[in-house]
Amino acid sequence: METPEAMTQFWAVVPAGGAGTRLWPLSRASSPKFLHDLTGSGRTLIQATIDRLAPLVDDRVLVITGAAHEDAVRRQLPALDRDRVIAEPSPRDSMAAIGLAAALLERDDPDAVLGSFAADHVISDQAAFEAGVREAVSVAQTGVLVTIGIEPTFAATGFGYIRAGVALAGFETACTVKEFVEKPDAERAAGYVASGEYRWNGGMFVVRASVLLDLLAENHPDLAAGLRAIAADPARLGELWPDLEKIAIDHAVAEPAAVAGRVAVVPGRFGWDDIGDYASLGSIVDAAPDGIRVLGEDALVIRKDASGLVIPAAGRTIAVVGLENIVVVDTGDALLVTTYEHAQDVKAVVDALKQSGRADLT
Amino acid sequence: METPEAMTQFWAVVPAGGAGTRLWPLSRASSPKFLHDLTGSGRTLIQATIDRLAPLVDDRVLVITGAAHEDAVRRQLPALDRDRVIAEPSPRDSMAAIGLAAALLERDDPDAVLGSFAADHVISDQAAFEAGVREAVSVAQTGVLVTIGIEPTFAATGFGYIRAGVALAGFETACTVKEFVEKPDAERAAGYVASGEYRWNGGMFVVRASVLLDLLAENHPDLAAGLRAIAADPARLGELWPDLEKIAIDHAVAEPAAVAGRVAVVPGRFGWDDIGDYASLGSIVDAAPDGIRVLGEDALVIRKDASGLVIPAAGRTIAVVGLENIVVVDTGDALLVTTYEHAQDVKAVVDALKQSGRADLT
Repeated sequence: METPEAMTQFWAVVPAGGAGTRLWPLSRASSPKFLHDLTGSGRTLIQATIDRLAPLVDDRVLVITGAAHEDAVRRQLPALDRDRVIAEPSPRDSMAAIGLAAALLERDDPDAVLGSFAADHVISDQAAFEAGVREAVSVAQTGVLVTIGIEPTFAATGFGYIRAGVALAGFETACTVKEFVEKPDAERAAGYVASGEYRWNGGMFVVRASVLLDLLAENHPDLAAGLRAIAADPARLGELWPDLEKIAIDHAVAEPAAVAGRVAVVPGRFGWDDIGDYASLGSIVDAAPDGIRVLGEDALVIRKDASGLVIPAAGRTIAVVGLENIVVVDTGDALLVTTYEHAQDVKAVVDALKQSGRADLT
Repeated sequence: METPEAMTQFWAVVPAGGAGTRLWPLSRASSPKFLHDLTGSGRTLIQATIDRLAPLVDDRVLVITGAAHEDAVRRQLPALDRDRVIAEPSPRDSMAAIGLAAALLERDDPDAVLGSFAADHVISDQAAFEAGVREAVSVAQTGVLVTIGIEPTFAATGFGYIRAGVALAGFETACTVKEFVEKPDAERAAGYVASGEYRWNGGMFVVRASVLLDLLAENHPDLAAGLRAIAADPARLGELWPDLEKIAIDHAVAEPAAVAGRVAVVPGRFGWDDIGDYASLGSIVDAAPDGIRVLGEDALVIRKDASGLVIPAAGRTIAVVGLENIVVVDTGDALLVTTYEHAQDVKAVVDALKQSGRADLT
């Protein structure tokens, strides 16, 4: 197991990006889902993410977010020092975001280990989360890329999967990774879950900062060099950032490293959800005895013969009568009415609004 | 046919009451449906009612409404003289309302004929409406109570029916009335329509004012006397009104008169709807090519795989995704989401709001 010294070199890196288009009108480009309390806990998703990491990293946290959200992130996380929030001049996908944090950490401590945790995921069972991360840190210190693979609870088609290989000697639960696979269709997903070999890819990577950048340099040398150059002279951020390659960390590093046998997986034995759409959100909001799930003030929702998710975010009274699995999201300037079944189609609404010149609502 | 002289003694009486509970949250006790433009015509229902009657009665109109709505009615009908709008001190059902108008007309012209037309019904085909009323006035001048019976277009279970008897000699289309029947179940409604003998009871009565009050006096002498006493001395309205019997004109006069063979029916060969609920309202709002019916600004409604009725009365953007026969009614302080199938259940929402202390929303 890890030593206390090991954990003092462990940093949490929290990329806070993504508009959460399928959660419109609650989530907007101007106010993405990580800034919202989507669980009714009283904490926004990014606040809950930082809370969850605190026992592992204390104040060793770097948040990378878009320039447009920097102020909101700082307001929501007042305890973070100024230099712990990094504003990207423009979106360059997850490799540049996490890679910049890695380069800054590597510069200050060549042995630093980082764990990347999205700002807008929901995790239950804090103890299991901490145990998984601690084991991942220990494994990462052997020089491999470690991912935390969520134990699947159903045959999800909305997530990528990780195929585990053999157990890693000297660790409790860690295994090698055979491959990362893209979001499967329903039949393949069922096969993955039945096999017991596959875990959900929740985008949680734990790795020594220098290992991540060295792995990146093998296939994307310009990107790795650019990130290290910015770390060496942060004044060059604005100059170098726009030319960085736009690529996801999975494609840039994780998949090639898995092929090379340099990735391990630690099973994540905790509840996890990326709240990708309103069906997903509905599954984590508690149901009232009558079957309706209300995210917000229950007394605002009058219901009769109805089930589903109602979000009275505008503070108005909402009556729902005779509808199964309905989704009603009421905000000050826009209202969505759909069903769990059509939750993925909400993206089309945002596209339609943009096309009709109502980007102000997206 | 009627002479011009006959029509100059014809007055329209427009009872403007009823909260339209099944049209909540558009219609409220504080702002009932007759005050709203529910057809998208640019005129409220009471304005459209007065417009429709104008070719028949010019300015010979009496509107009877609740004291709470008097100001709103006067504002919506600025061309009406002050004495043409009568405010009831409290609701006493339709017999007292129409009977008071009858007593006032009888006082000023013993030969006056009145036609009662609800303020919140929708009628299409103006020419057919006028033809029906003109024939009804001619028949009424023979001393009988005349009702205009709407030709049914489907086996409605939400309306009462009128069973016609034999043709009345000397008139084009009028018949005797065998009986009034209450709202039937679906099987009986189908039988009524198939028989060809039955018409919908749209509550349109045409009758000499003195005949109406004399018929009333036969079974409800105190009510008839009270109404005539108020007409003789309007200063006594506040004193006498609270003790008047609360009864519908159908029960008080029309049904007993039919049993006595003193009612005639003129067929109404025009489109008619009482807009009793959102399913009914949906049937009179034009559908867009994609199947959605929008009452209000079409551009506010983003839809994908959806049909039904959307009313963006609050001016907010509404997205409806993947729902058939949905009903969405968006107002400033309350939102309703239901389906055509459950349109009648909206009343339960209003009851629930009253019980939970939110009568301010009803």
